[in-house]
Amino acid sequence: MSHYPESVQILIDRFATFPGIGKKTAQRLALHVLMAKSEEATQFAKAIMDVKAHIVFCSVCGSITEEDPCHICMDPKRIQDVICIVENPADIFTFERTNNFRGRYHVLGGVLSPLDGVGPEDLNIDKLLNRVSEGMEVVLATNPSVEGDTTSLYLSRLLKEKNVKVSRLARGLPVGSDLEYTDIATLTRALEGRTEL
Amino acid sequence: MSHYPESVQILIDRFATFPGIGKKTAQRLALHVLMAKSEEATQFAKAIMDVKAHIVFCSVCGSITEEDPCHICMDPKRIQDVICIVENPADIFTFERTNNFRGRYHVLGGVLSPLDGVGPEDLNIDKLLNRVSEGMEVVLATNPSVEGDTTSLYLSRLLKEKNVKVSRLARGLPVGSDLEYTDIATLTRALEGRTEL
Repeated sequence: MSHYPESVQILIDRFATFPGIGKKTAQRLALHVLMAKSEEATQFAKAIMDVKAHIVFCSVCGSITEEDPCHICMDPKRIQDVICIVENPADIFTFERTNNFRGRYHVLGGVLSPLDGVGPEDLNIDKLLNRVSEGMEVVLATNPSVEGDTTSLYLSRLLKEKNVKVSRLARGLPVGSDLEYTDIATLTRALEGRTEL
Repeated sequence: MSHYPESVQILIDRFATFPGIGKKTAQRLALHVLMAKSEEATQFAKAIMDVKAHIVFCSVCGSITEEDPCHICMDPKRIQDVICIVENPADIFTFERTNNFRGRYHVLGGVLSPLDGVGPEDLNIDKLLNRVSEGMEVVLATNPSVEGDTTSLYLSRLLKEKNVKVSRLARGLPVGSDLEYTDIATLTRALEGRTEL
């Protein structure tokens, strides 16, 4: 059996370590690099190194930023006493696109997952507890998964001890969806959380 | 609206230029690089540069290789007078996995596609015509698409002028498929090309 040249195989293997990238896609991506102009490949490699060189984690909220603290934590127009807790930095950018949240964020860096060996000490929880004080509001915005819900429950207990108002994102029908194709769990939550008109 | 830090956005944009990678996947890949260990990112960037530095195109067949000519063209055990014509280097590695073809290859580097401005002069055809001589066999293994078929037809005319035996890959039912779900075009070809038992 013939193999790809070694340097190509190494690049394929690197691509295959990415989330959601299988062997076939990794091959396609590696061959795309191979067929690209040299300067494009150089710029791609440079972009990778630049990201690692320039990006740090915000010492306040744990998000990714080029300047510490990040511009959201430094923004005086942001409401000080509302903190939205998310799993990953990417979630912040999703929230920001709604243009509807004027508080600040806190990045956990994951969720509690005993099966994967992730416990409370692996998450960015200590800093969160130092940030909150009596009278603040914390919005729990972990993913609506078993791990996300478990993590939110764990945090809500810790936060309530500090007399913080704790809320979490509403569960219900996604906008534009079709009732007929909605799963039972979502519909149950939508019924439980029905709002008066 | 808040944006990703500039260096992250640049990397996202780079990933988004890859075939089959949309905006969301590009974000996911870029954030994976960001979260990876520094040494992993360095090795990834190095793998990209290595590929561009070490890989050349075989001067005989046009495949990708670290040594020119490539090891298939240099292999004395390979049948000299059978050449399989493929669109891209990746197709060679797919053929080699069958362990069933003992001839050599020739890479076109694409297919004729007037709409995309790709004409015969853009393909690796001159070298092919120099390689073939009377009595040889050429297997046309372009993709079973409109462009692939057009390219094969074009080549077969040129090659027949050189008294070369020209064949192309069989069209028919893929192994393991289900007749009920086979498209009409494939079934028509399978019927036309039926073989006696």
